Amino acid sequence: MDDIYGKMNTHGGNIYPYLKENGMEPLDFSVNISPLTVPEEVKRAFINETDHIHRYPDNECTDLRNALSNKYGIPSECMVIGNGASDLIYRIAYALRCRNVLIPVPAFSEYDAAFSASGSRTDFYYTDGAKDFDIDAGLACEIGRDTEAVIMGVPSNPSGRITDNSTLEKILRKCRECGTYLILDECFLPFIKDGLSVLAEDFTENVIIIRSFTKIFAMPGIRLGYCLCGDEKLAGKIKNAGAPWQVSSMACKAGVAALEQEEYIDAVRKAVSAERSRLIEALEKSGARIVKSDADFILFKSDTLTEDEFIKRGIMIRNCGNFRGLDDTWHRIAVKCSEDNDTFIEAVTDIMGGRKG
Amino acid sequence: MDDIYGKMNTHGGNIYPYLKENGMEPLDFSVNISPLTVPEEVKRAFINETDHIHRYPDNECTDLRNALSNKYGIPSECMVIGNGASDLIYRIAYALRCRNVLIPVPAFSEYDAAFSASGSRTDFYYTDGAKDFDIDAGLACEIGRDTEAVIMGVPSNPSGRITDNSTLEKILRKCRECGTYLILDECFLPFIKDGLSVLAEDFTENVIIIRSFTKIFAMPGIRLGYCLCGDEKLAGKIKNAGAPWQVSSMACKAGVAALEQEEYIDAVRKAVSAERSRLIEALEKSGARIVKSDADFILFKSDTLTEDEFIKRGIMIRNCGNFRGLDDTWHRIAVKCSEDNDTFIEAVTDIMGGRKG
Repeated sequence: MDDIYGKMNTHGGNIYPYLKENGMEPLDFSVNISPLTVPEEVKRAFINETDHIHRYPDNECTDLRNALSNKYGIPSECMVIGNGASDLIYRIAYALRCRNVLIPVPAFSEYDAAFSASGSRTDFYYTDGAKDFDIDAGLACEIGRDTEAVIMGVPSNPSGRITDNSTLEKILRKCRECGTYLILDECFLPFIKDGLSVLAEDFTENVIIIRSFTKIFAMPGIRLGYCLCGDEKLAGKIKNAGAPWQVSSMACKAGVAALEQEEYIDAVRKAVSAERSRLIEALEKSGARIVKSDADFILFKSDTLTEDEFIKRGIMIRNCGNFRGLDDTWHRIAVKCSEDNDTFIEAVTDIMGGRKG
Repeated sequence: MDDIYGKMNTHGGNIYPYLKENGMEPLDFSVNISPLTVPEEVKRAFINETDHIHRYPDNECTDLRNALSNKYGIPSECMVIGNGASDLIYRIAYALRCRNVLIPVPAFSEYDAAFSASGSRTDFYYTDGAKDFDIDAGLACEIGRDTEAVIMGVPSNPSGRITDNSTLEKILRKCRECGTYLILDECFLPFIKDGLSVLAEDFTENVIIIRSFTKIFAMPGIRLGYCLCGDEKLAGKIKNAGAPWQVSSMACKAGVAALEQEEYIDAVRKAVSAERSRLIEALEKSGARIVKSDADFILFKSDTLTEDEFIKRGIMIRNCGNFRGLDDTWHRIAVKCSEDNDTFIEAVTDIMGGRKG
């Protein structure tokens, strides 16, 4: 049934039922946003723009596209700004109207949802849990002339694994040969490194890159993402596949301010790297099977460290049972700030202690 | 060509090129928003919610749907909140996937754009300029078993004319007979009266109503609209036709605060009614042909009072040459506050004086 509540529990971050019941937020490890708080300059830019609330937003997001163009050296005509990365995934799906789409899984469920909504048939390439769900060159073998698009995360979510350059190169080559669009969701790449996942010479007209502001800058309450296309005409098609004025004036200004926050991003990367090791250590001690993540979140398998046990302790984690290719013994946690991670680690000890006792 | 800039000049409100060139906003008569400024409580609710910018928005917009449910006595399950009314128009188009859609014109161009993007064939019912472009019972005669949807404004934009009850009743009946969805865009109805355009008993499962917060509350910089469906399943389908989290947390809170602003709406209606008469008088004096509007904007035909003449005087109006069924001697202006309207009326005199001189 097309239930309006159908998507309610298919994602992390739905703190609202807990908030309503308990009058306070849980400690939310279920969403993969920056462990630092939103930069003050970004929040201020957002609030200041409410002075112009009477204006329609600039439908072209000119300032933000220009700022991105300066950053990446890509023409602003090849960019589309969206109301969050998820808006862009749907726009892309509706713009391309593919018959067949191939998705390596486990993966963010909106890839399948968006392409299915647009009428595409979605096929899945199941990665191997024993190999940390790495997207390998086997994916390239599955791409054929009838594969109109491939969509994948770099790094992949929920595994947090980044596809190595030589594998990505093979996938890119096969896509070019077959006339297949390659859609790379880089929403979590800024947690790992600067720049794009593909080289400039590989950023050809069949490549689309999706990025998000809200995750790296810890502001998912604002919706803001963008896509970079290898081709100007394709960008226009994606933009026109959805409604005009999808990005609020406030979000646009926040985005421009965010692009200047290079020190913040460095600090996020350092924090994630250090804190991730502590969390992995604690999870390993508990006997959980851990996927070695490159990103700001960790996928693990455990019968004991369940979301029920954590929520009793005021901590929300992401059960991954509804990810294609995983079952409900798989869980995902974000890497948060030191203090929050202390609380998480204590909870792990507590749950394991209770188990033993 | 699918140009990214293709939509740039298809709507009013694009003040940005003028702002860039002149370092100041034009006096914008090209968008039909409330002549009063946004209520302080609404703006404050928006800004206060930035304290929770780290949270994903509630994907269900529970608080806002509950508040709307209280207001209209319609189950919250029959409502979808969107990132502006335009977001909902596209979601509806993608959800219904109609083969044939009938649109009385002239009309808001996004009806055609959205249904065309979703793959529908769009047919047009040309209303009669000599009869103020009123949508008449002739529309009902054009609806057949292969018409899967009709979309129309109540009041219509750009004419500002409201379809009378008996005509609307005939259209509704024919839609029911033919299994046709009737989509009523009521974005400008709050400028005229309380309640919906259809009676409760006519709000059957084939009826969809679209509304906007941003116009009546003068806050188009925020994107916020909603649709009311005669059927819960249909609401779910519309919601799932687009991306999750499309409404920011800040916009949601602003919406809840806005629903309490009944005095503001009364003041808007009074201001619009009084000021509209003054503008009509001035336009009539100039010899322009005027469509007698029920709404907060006025459509007129003039060879002399052109957008070029107004923009020289710092005033932006909406040339209607790209509305299907109109040519570029048709123009639309908003009804603004007394002071702004004074400036407009002076400009009319000035332009006409120059003409005579």
